[in-house]
Amino acid sequence: MHYDDIAKLFENLPSVDPDAQDAASSREGNLTKPAGSLGRLEDLSAWCAAWQGRHPATLDNIRIIVFAGNHGITAQGVSAFPPEVTVQMVANFAAGGAAINQLAAVQGARLDVIPLDLDTPTADFTKAPAMTEAECAAAFTAGYEAVEDAPDVLVVGEMGIGNTTTAAALACALFGGDPTDWTGPGTGVDAAGVALKVRAVAAAMELHGPVLDDPLRALRCVGGRELAAMAGAVLAARHQRVPVILDGFVTTAAVSVLEKTVPGALDHCVAGHVSGEPGHRRLLERLGKEPLLDIGMRLGEASGAAVALGILRCALAAHNGMATFAEAAVSGELDP
Amino acid sequence: MHYDDIAKLFENLPSVDPDAQDAASSREGNLTKPAGSLGRLEDLSAWCAAWQGRHPATLDNIRIIVFAGNHGITAQGVSAFPPEVTVQMVANFAAGGAAINQLAAVQGARLDVIPLDLDTPTADFTKAPAMTEAECAAAFTAGYEAVEDAPDVLVVGEMGIGNTTTAAALACALFGGDPTDWTGPGTGVDAAGVALKVRAVAAAMELHGPVLDDPLRALRCVGGRELAAMAGAVLAARHQRVPVILDGFVTTAAVSVLEKTVPGALDHCVAGHVSGEPGHRRLLERLGKEPLLDIGMRLGEASGAAVALGILRCALAAHNGMATFAEAAVSGELDP
Repeated sequence: MHYDDIAKLFENLPSVDPDAQDAASSREGNLTKPAGSLGRLEDLSAWCAAWQGRHPATLDNIRIIVFAGNHGITAQGVSAFPPEVTVQMVANFAAGGAAINQLAAVQGARLDVIPLDLDTPTADFTKAPAMTEAECAAAFTAGYEAVEDAPDVLVVGEMGIGNTTTAAALACALFGGDPTDWTGPGTGVDAAGVALKVRAVAAAMELHGPVLDDPLRALRCVGGRELAAMAGAVLAARHQRVPVILDGFVTTAAVSVLEKTVPGALDHCVAGHVSGEPGHRRLLERLGKEPLLDIGMRLGEASGAAVALGILRCALAAHNGMATFAEAAVSGELDP
Repeated sequence: MHYDDIAKLFENLPSVDPDAQDAASSREGNLTKPAGSLGRLEDLSAWCAAWQGRHPATLDNIRIIVFAGNHGITAQGVSAFPPEVTVQMVANFAAGGAAINQLAAVQGARLDVIPLDLDTPTADFTKAPAMTEAECAAAFTAGYEAVEDAPDVLVVGEMGIGNTTTAAALACALFGGDPTDWTGPGTGVDAAGVALKVRAVAAAMELHGPVLDDPLRALRCVGGRELAAMAGAVLAARHQRVPVILDGFVTTAAVSVLEKTVPGALDHCVAGHVSGEPGHRRLLERLGKEPLLDIGMRLGEASGAAVALGILRCALAAHNGMATFAEAAVSGELDP
């Protein structure tokens, strides 16, 4: 796909299926429990049916895709880990040794890992646009095309040494504010490291300036390949009406490009968790998304969303499997 | 067991196994992720190993026990549902139609339901002690003896129309404060219904007075059979060094009897969730327990803890299954 064609993908975004949504709502009210007593589990099962366009919703085909990219910004010393860890971790994913491998297995999810030109890091965005139009379009397309055959639910995640600085720059470009609002310890840098990250973000805002007002150009100038791919994948999911559980700070920054391009473009997404990386809570507030989990995770790799998949599995099991008051011969509420 | 013998069960409570705890901590630091990046998942896997007294901890034998009881306080009109729903829901559990049946299946847990003299509700505690010493001891013993063969983890829960009023009275007896602090809509009563509940709790405090300073006597005078059983089961788990995930408001009120009897008696327990019932957050604060989930559930039946079991499963899968930096040939952190 050519860079200029990406904008066309934002046309005619589908909405929920009102019939499936109504069917979920109708069944929910008849299940053997006080109305509303399953809390957000009730919202999740309705959301899943509404986007899948069928009731009962299904969870037989859970798809997790982790995209990996390398970042020129690591030259600024922004990460606690050396950049070769990206490719080493991709090998660890392939060997089944990473956190996401174990979490995907718990949830019965298929895990795919897609490395994106790891030998060619993006440019240092304090000095030049991170990607050319062709590079950005290729990464976006890789993500868009990775979502095929409409899985029942999609989770995307990332691996890329240096990419919390990338995400901070992208969040700052999209939502404004001070670089310190979006910058945190990432994999674990100290205060001096955070200061380096803040300086990198500030330098990027200065260098690229008003170009950043266009969300896709912000993605190209201060983003990264795995961020572009996640945005592409989540947009593809929308066209296939696939519900999405969002992971952490980097994922959320990446997909914010979609929401900033077309408000409502993330209506098919729920926030799986809020990360320990402080900018994530702020991003979710800007997007109006309440996270399912708040347990201090900050690993990336889709790991927080993968834990949240377990909540979705519970939601669908309860909604689809419970007896109704009539079936179980349980008395309903007394007249007040 | 005689009522006077219950106090002896609080002697010689075991603590964590420091060797298993150290082994968990040592392995955690070598896994292929930044230190601390799995957040509370790391705490959970260490907690589970420390209490089980073995590393790696196991989760092959997950046990959920739901106790059911009936409450004389329903005569005061405190519930939105008629009291016969307790026995109807026990039949629904047996038939596999309740929320907890579906959630137990998702987690691969064994579910047992133990009805406790449903034909004999407790006395209306605004007029008399809820239970005789013999009744309280029998229920406590039923719970204590229900935990056998040291499962890998225990969840207890309850069913009992009227029991959020019971739990409010017990919480008020144990922790003081105003009846309004502990009283909420339960299954869904309106403001007038909440006012009835508040009056019932206030009447109980007035009637039983200083007797309530003894936690076990508070359990007997304003508790219920399923609450006594849950307290017994969680105390049995402690003696068997079985880690426990706590459910909602009623469960937490019940087991608070243990903590009030011997501080630290709930050290083997984590809070699975904070319920939508407002008194629960207050109870957890008093116990110093941070809930894993905050998703507005308020059903009881062990349902919130059952969802949280999925987080524990993720924690153990990650801790036990991930590769170390050395195994995966992944570079560690740079020297700062």
